[in-house]
Amino acid sequence: MDPRTTIEAMLRPDLRGRTAYGAPQLEVPVALNTNENSYPVPAVVAEAMTRAVAEVATGLNRYPDREFTALRTDLAAYLSRGGTAVTAEQVWAGNGSNEVLLHLLQAFGGPGRVALGFTPAYSMHPIITTTTGTTWVDGMRGVAGAGAFDLDAASAVAQVRGLRPDVVFLCSPNNPTGTALDLATVEAVHDATDGLVVVDEAYAEFARPGTPSALTLLEGRPRLVVTRTMSKAFALAGGRLGYLAADPVLVDALRLVRMPYHLSSPTQAVARAALAHADLMLETVGVVKDQRDRIVTELAALGLDPVASDANFVLFGGLRDSHATWQALLERGVLVRDVGIPHYLRVTAGTPEETTAFLDALTALVPTHAGAAP
Amino acid sequence: MDPRTTIEAMLRPDLRGRTAYGAPQLEVPVALNTNENSYPVPAVVAEAMTRAVAEVATGLNRYPDREFTALRTDLAAYLSRGGTAVTAEQVWAGNGSNEVLLHLLQAFGGPGRVALGFTPAYSMHPIITTTTGTTWVDGMRGVAGAGAFDLDAASAVAQVRGLRPDVVFLCSPNNPTGTALDLATVEAVHDATDGLVVVDEAYAEFARPGTPSALTLLEGRPRLVVTRTMSKAFALAGGRLGYLAADPVLVDALRLVRMPYHLSSPTQAVARAALAHADLMLETVGVVKDQRDRIVTELAALGLDPVASDANFVLFGGLRDSHATWQALLERGVLVRDVGIPHYLRVTAGTPEETTAFLDALTALVPTHAGAAP
Repeated sequence: MDPRTTIEAMLRPDLRGRTAYGAPQLEVPVALNTNENSYPVPAVVAEAMTRAVAEVATGLNRYPDREFTALRTDLAAYLSRGGTAVTAEQVWAGNGSNEVLLHLLQAFGGPGRVALGFTPAYSMHPIITTTTGTTWVDGMRGVAGAGAFDLDAASAVAQVRGLRPDVVFLCSPNNPTGTALDLATVEAVHDATDGLVVVDEAYAEFARPGTPSALTLLEGRPRLVVTRTMSKAFALAGGRLGYLAADPVLVDALRLVRMPYHLSSPTQAVARAALAHADLMLETVGVVKDQRDRIVTELAALGLDPVASDANFVLFGGLRDSHATWQALLERGVLVRDVGIPHYLRVTAGTPEETTAFLDALTALVPTHAGAAP
Repeated sequence: MDPRTTIEAMLRPDLRGRTAYGAPQLEVPVALNTNENSYPVPAVVAEAMTRAVAEVATGLNRYPDREFTALRTDLAAYLSRGGTAVTAEQVWAGNGSNEVLLHLLQAFGGPGRVALGFTPAYSMHPIITTTTGTTWVDGMRGVAGAGAFDLDAASAVAQVRGLRPDVVFLCSPNNPTGTALDLATVEAVHDATDGLVVVDEAYAEFARPGTPSALTLLEGRPRLVVTRTMSKAFALAGGRLGYLAADPVLVDALRLVRMPYHLSSPTQAVARAALAHADLMLETVGVVKDQRDRIVTELAALGLDPVASDANFVLFGGLRDSHATWQALLERGVLVRDVGIPHYLRVTAGTPEETTAFLDALTALVPTHAGAAP
């Protein structure tokens, strides 16, 4: 028998016919498709990382600290810089925020339970949800027209009250649309449910001035979780370190579902070296934000429809055939993301040179690619 | 309301009241409780790992190779040294073999499905199974008396035929009992089911001469999986690199459930540096096996009941109160593992000095600790 038939028959029924998540990993001159920080790790930090690994290498015959206490302490100290004190007992981490979200769904989701997210949002939320046997429900964002992608608080509350989900995902700044949520919406959604409320703040460090973090709401709200990552502003996508802050009791419950020793000693060492140089690692955030604002301004001037962004990327509409534009940009050496929203594409704000390359390529395409479908 | 009450109410019902997996991580002079390799990573390999991380550090702003192609190629080459050619497409890896097993259960288990293991076996098998919503069934090993922990092929086949599980775990050498399975049993179990058969070979490199690997059975058996780890013989527990070999179609299906970019660039780099020095990393295996055989011989001479071992540990019985002996050894600076089998403890074979410390401590205890319950 063909192995395909045998393995298909063994596969979990809801996985049959599915394709794996994955942005293309293509070698291109200008990669602006996965919201990485385009700036390499500064030499002094790369050296500190190397020294940190040198210190643990000889002892790699031993398991890592299963509770990653030193790393949690450092992450708590970093979060506390924002003005809200966070303790190590409130912090959990994983191999990327995907794993942290997986732990949350493994502990608080599962068969017979329902998670709600307001799409379009981070495309891994439904995948992580269904991977754990939890039912995913696509909630609706705002109404069409101006601010079409904003999440309306009253609408969100009504959807939560109607569905009574066990887990609600909020995403602020929202990916792929880019805009942050106001905290009143987070509070309103939290108060409308008895379930877990996860605020995915992967892009928080890029938010425009005056955008507070949901970390400020944690006190007294044991059902609220704020997830973060070192992959974006912190320029550490290759280090795979996502984390969250929540009530210590909730954090402790995640130990029931995590695989023991899930964070390798090198991963812990590299992340700690980065955190020890947080100011240096975050130095490029200002440049990236400038490029993001430049993209918004210039795309609007081109007659396209960029969405207001608090992240390191811009979603823009006004394209006749977004996949054709994606392909045409790729042919010009610029890789952006087709997030599956008709007439829209998402571009990461990179270096000024990358941004220029993207804008030049797109400008050349606008005459034939912009506008309503013929 | 107490956060405990709120969070308990949100927790997945089957997790309520459970405690997290975890061997105590205690600071003791002689740690022989988690089957680590007691020998540190050789200096030349530690330096190679450090160089490897230095090479990737600057580029950590970018996501790692999601398909970890170079690492898979190196793992395939390492497995092929055993005499059975394995290709990169047949190899999958995760942050420890726990994660690899999790991927298998996420893809081929799930609600309504059943996994069978023959206990006592690796204690994470049922935890990983139930974490994915799969039902776990404790199968029985052999009959009481001599060879009490051996898995009898006819009994295993009868249990598989009776239960019709979706996943069967075999563990060879078995943890915590130490003995390898003969391949005829693996074949018989495989032929008795239409489901997935997972042979956990975490300790394969320590097997006594003439113990073949289930890798030799993979050809033509797309339902068979062999899992391995770099945590044991390879002395890389802190590096967190578990892997498996199976049909390429099965491997491809795991991409449906893995979190994208689950292996960090430092984890990939460190593992590849270790694999490039496989001979050196495995150099201590012979010494460890000698100590294992010494433990078996000396414990028998003490009138205790050691189980024949193909691993880097020995399970031994003949204790009046195994928990009291565990505690008394700990007070003497020797940490072993209480695996929950009455009258038995498990000890890792360490360096000759550690083995001597363990044997001396136990010898002093034997007069009061050995023998049947009073």
